[in-house]
Amino acid sequence: MTADACCVTPPLLGEPLSEPAAVEMAKTLKALADPVRLRLFSAIASHSGGEACVCDISGGIDVSQPTVSHHLKVLRDAGLLTSERRASWVYYAVVPEALQDISALVNLNTAALAGVTA
Amino acid sequence: MTADACCVTPPLLGEPLSEPAAVEMAKTLKALADPVRLRLFSAIASHSGGEACVCDISGGIDVSQPTVSHHLKVLRDAGLLTSERRASWVYYAVVPEALQDISALVNLNTAALAGVTA
Repeated sequence: MTADACCVTPPLLGEPLSEPAAVEMAKTLKALADPVRLRLFSAIASHSGGEACVCDISGGIDVSQPTVSHHLKVLRDAGLLTSERRASWVYYAVVPEALQDISALVNLNTAALAGVTA
Repeated sequence: MTADACCVTPPLLGEPLSEPAAVEMAKTLKALADPVRLRLFSAIASHSGGEACVCDISGGIDVSQPTVSHHLKVLRDAGLLTSERRASWVYYAVVPEALQDISALVNLNTAALAGVTA
């Protein structure tokens, strides 16, 4: 360890985002950045297996069915959910990989709070 | 373990977000959901100690100084950054705690990809 290395607080994140990575991440964050979409997404993620029928999740959320459908479409178009029709219901499932890059950015939180050093 | 418990895939997230928590998280996500802000934020987070002078970070980002200042203000107003003037420069520091709730939401990613079960 050099004298310099001992006295410099390590960065919280490995390197800055490139422009293309930032453009992609901003799209995903915009899709999530709405209270109703966050509640729908977290309701699906907290259902067994990370998937749920629209009938399971819209009960506690006080918006109309067309509004629920609109928000689920935004999440699906952003690659955060997949959907599959089974009999007369549509089931939505979370795509954990869609959150991978955001996870890397916001996990600097965990590292910093735990006092982890590089 | 009951017969039911053995056959049900566990959820990815403990419980759905409450309405007030979703409203707060949406504000933070909106502040981050811009390519320039993501690049500025990640540039600060990847600087030594999670803080940087505006002179350190705006070099690689091709926008005007007033635009940089505007975006840094949005991040600061959202509680994602703090700022401190030292001599003639303003230094910005990441607030890791501001990302704590988002981290809990997007970390379902890590758990799911690692095959972690509850």
